[in-house]
Amino acid sequence: MTLEAIRYRSGSLQILNQLLLPHQTVYEDIRSVQGAYEAIKSMKVRGAPAIAIVGCLSLAVELRAGAGGDDPVTFIRESLCHLTSARPTAVNMGRAARELMEFAENESMEKNSEQLRDSVISWIEDMLERDVNDNRKIGNYGAQHILSGVPRDSVTVLTHCNTGSLATAGYGTALGVVRSLHGLGRLKRVYCTETRPYNQGSRLTAYEAVAEGIPATLITDSMAALTMREMDITAVVVGADRVVANGDTANKVGTYQLAIAAKHHGIPFYVAAPSTSCDLSLESGRDIIIEVRPPEELTSINGVPIAAPGIEVWNPAFDVTPHQLITGGIITELGVFLPSELQAALTGRLTAL
Amino acid sequence: MTLEAIRYRSGSLQILNQLLLPHQTVYEDIRSVQGAYEAIKSMKVRGAPAIAIVGCLSLAVELRAGAGGDDPVTFIRESLCHLTSARPTAVNMGRAARELMEFAENESMEKNSEQLRDSVISWIEDMLERDVNDNRKIGNYGAQHILSGVPRDSVTVLTHCNTGSLATAGYGTALGVVRSLHGLGRLKRVYCTETRPYNQGSRLTAYEAVAEGIPATLITDSMAALTMREMDITAVVVGADRVVANGDTANKVGTYQLAIAAKHHGIPFYVAAPSTSCDLSLESGRDIIIEVRPPEELTSINGVPIAAPGIEVWNPAFDVTPHQLITGGIITELGVFLPSELQAALTGRLTAL
Repeated sequence: MTLEAIRYRSGSLQILNQLLLPHQTVYEDIRSVQGAYEAIKSMKVRGAPAIAIVGCLSLAVELRAGAGGDDPVTFIRESLCHLTSARPTAVNMGRAARELMEFAENESMEKNSEQLRDSVISWIEDMLERDVNDNRKIGNYGAQHILSGVPRDSVTVLTHCNTGSLATAGYGTALGVVRSLHGLGRLKRVYCTETRPYNQGSRLTAYEAVAEGIPATLITDSMAALTMREMDITAVVVGADRVVANGDTANKVGTYQLAIAAKHHGIPFYVAAPSTSCDLSLESGRDIIIEVRPPEELTSINGVPIAAPGIEVWNPAFDVTPHQLITGGIITELGVFLPSELQAALTGRLTAL
Repeated sequence: MTLEAIRYRSGSLQILNQLLLPHQTVYEDIRSVQGAYEAIKSMKVRGAPAIAIVGCLSLAVELRAGAGGDDPVTFIRESLCHLTSARPTAVNMGRAARELMEFAENESMEKNSEQLRDSVISWIEDMLERDVNDNRKIGNYGAQHILSGVPRDSVTVLTHCNTGSLATAGYGTALGVVRSLHGLGRLKRVYCTETRPYNQGSRLTAYEAVAEGIPATLITDSMAALTMREMDITAVVVGADRVVANGDTANKVGTYQLAIAAKHHGIPFYVAAPSTSCDLSLESGRDIIIEVRPPEELTSINGVPIAAPGIEVWNPAFDVTPHQLITGGIITELGVFLPSELQAALTGRLTAL
């Protein structure tokens, strides 16, 4: 069984409310762009690819109902601008917005409002399908690359946060690699960090692993280095919110610390991300803006206080892992590349298309 | 103001109930050895030095009221035996029991019951004072050592778990160093990790910092490396559960990962511990047995589930930091030593006594 985080049929969109997982499995209707904005902001849906897809699908739902009237281009532009502002660090929504806007403007030269709405909806629906296909390719390339250097029958990997069906249109990126290893019968075990403060590991990755029978062990974030030393970890695989031109990677906070620990233990460190998460417009990770989130994420759980009242809090949601620490490679739907090869690989593809 | 976890006046003992922290500040009377046993067993009081001190003080309270009658030695022996059994893994209570019993037996040769009671009470009161004094020495040595290499007016340090007034007779070890820096007016800020899974950082260290006006910022354990890179951290200071002959140090899980991150950033990494936490009978950290605790510590908070049901869990309570990573030194009441100097320093002292 594969977990469905996004349910879309023409004109209708539902998302699995990830704030209620793992205790309640509740799908919620998203009927508008504003509804998607709120779901993204409040983290009912999260994960860079999923954010972009839910955002765009909410636009498709409104367009199907005739939104924008005689001037759909303006409606599309304002909607995309609003959606992009919900979470600033992940690049996917911003990229989808630019590409879709360019497409819509070109289409508007030749088509009337109704035709334009139809073609934009098709573009968005293709995006959903493309994401799942790309993830399967990422999973297979990553699994083969990890196995290629290993004489053993089976491997043990460590991952962070949630990068699975719940973070994408389906299958997942880093967790897609884990799924592929499991599908090949070559996964001994995956260690997943709980991923404070939002517990995407203990709530979501653990939920996916249990649901699909993937052998998995939960650890706290602070146990990762000990796990690397004691548990014969073959590779560390994480996702990405944004990979920039030199390979520096913004991802869930804690990724940087894992990469340092992996380097210390001589364990290959991989980033798994679709090319849509790559942002060649930024040269290095220094240029990435890191979202700082509210203190309450550390000081309470489900509204129940867990910290001393009055304590100050720093809550950056992401960190940047320098490319030098990405020793395994960057796994994309085009193949696995060293950070230094990424720009050439992606530029080649972009030219070819 | 200094936070008082243990309130003792001749004949009267109160402890701060740590199970209710940080939300309620409740002192409870301990009127008997049995009362102390129950408080230790239920973790109303925790931290190896604090456990030993509360246990012995409860004995002093009973002795002050005349307990033991004509045979105080038997009463003392049975009381200490009972207290030691409350948390059998905590070494300090057992050590104190052995030393106090030897003292009481020697005293009983020459003194009557009333005189014996008085001298045992004095011994116990000295122990309370000695622990605080040793902690103040640790604090001062550590603060001076950290400041010695720094041209700046003030320093920023990072610590883990709780090693303060709540874990000792008062003042604290690693947090004692932080207190001393603050007392000297040289502490810009301390970053404290929340310390999953038991949240000693967010519950207890944060509580002490707020109570005493120490500038402190709470972060998740996974943000430590990012904090080291972004926040100009001068030193990392942690406590110890056991330091062995070569300087390898067992401490709260996550310490090893912090030490790796500190090394990566070229930040001095210090262990602060009284000489009573050093165990020269073990040669290296490989000989330390690591306690693995129940999965529920990760999968629930205050009885409320926070992880996906059915997920497997690994929950080691401690890890061992190899001496090579303790780059700042080991801070004791005798001074600050490199791991390679520790054995000679302690042996010298033990011979001198």
